[in-house]
Amino acid sequence: MTNDGGYGVRDGEVAVDLPDKFDASLYFIGRIRTPWKRREDCPRNARESEAVCTIELDPRFTEGLKGVESCTHLVVLYWMDKARRDLVLQKPRHYNEQRGTFALRSPARPNPIAMSVVRLLGIEGGKLSVVGVACLNDTPLLDLKPYFASVDAVSDAVVGWHAALKR
Amino acid sequence: MTNDGGYGVRDGEVAVDLPDKFDASLYFIGRIRTPWKRREDCPRNARESEAVCTIELDPRFTEGLKGVESCTHLVVLYWMDKARRDLVLQKPRHYNEQRGTFALRSPARPNPIAMSVVRLLGIEGGKLSVVGVACLNDTPLLDLKPYFASVDAVSDAVVGWHAALKR
Repeated sequence: MTNDGGYGVRDGEVAVDLPDKFDASLYFIGRIRTPWKRREDCPRNARESEAVCTIELDPRFTEGLKGVESCTHLVVLYWMDKARRDLVLQKPRHYNEQRGTFALRSPARPNPIAMSVVRLLGIEGGKLSVVGVACLNDTPLLDLKPYFASVDAVSDAVVGWHAALKR
Repeated sequence: MTNDGGYGVRDGEVAVDLPDKFDASLYFIGRIRTPWKRREDCPRNARESEAVCTIELDPRFTEGLKGVESCTHLVVLYWMDKARRDLVLQKPRHYNEQRGTFALRSPARPNPIAMSVVRLLGIEGGKLSVVGVACLNDTPLLDLKPYFASVDAVSDAVVGWHAALKR
């Protein structure tokens, strides 16, 4: 029996037994302030909204922002701890087909780390104004990184199953 | 006193006290097999090498790959646990200037999660052949995600401090 954490498994979804113990641990280094208080209010796709969100870094790490102001875009990693972690096959409501967890950006995954590329508008002290996250208000922050177009941008990348939906 | 984990702080580097306790935990869901056994052998930039690396997923998660074969590129998250986690200002050997941790892709950061965009060559069972990681052999895997050019590719993004070096 796997623990469903209060969330049921939908028809067509498959859960596995997770390992007995964890292998590493994380610090929440800040919070992301957004206008969205319920999951159903969040934009499905970060590019759907131009809402300005605020990333508030724990003051102990403020010095770590030196040089970040010169970046136009950042990689933001954050923690989506509201979903179950044991699903390998999922059937999101808006797609009527079963797909593997690693073919989806769903928050339900063994390590619920989300990655968003955001546009940086400005920094004041430990607060960054950004456009491009689509998470719930108060979501825990894990990391900020400079976005390098030379290694991170692949304009012609294709997600085949998704492209097929639009045909 | 902060624990330096056996690594010293170089001139121009600044460490802070980390929080007393962790906030969340991770599973290692596989390993990344690469040709590099020592840190100094790893390519500094993942695009410098065309070496084919293998991502070996823990067999319990193999079903989670359904649909991944249709992706040309993936986001790979992995764990770089060899570096200290308390540095906020760093002076990498190859840049002679002090910069904030969040303006660098250095493995030394509060949560040492690395992000690489890789090209997927093929999948056999739970093994993925990819080009584009630059980590040590046996590095722990945290997550795989489909790379969506629509939200993840920003070709004109600029890291100002880095661009200035090349002028």
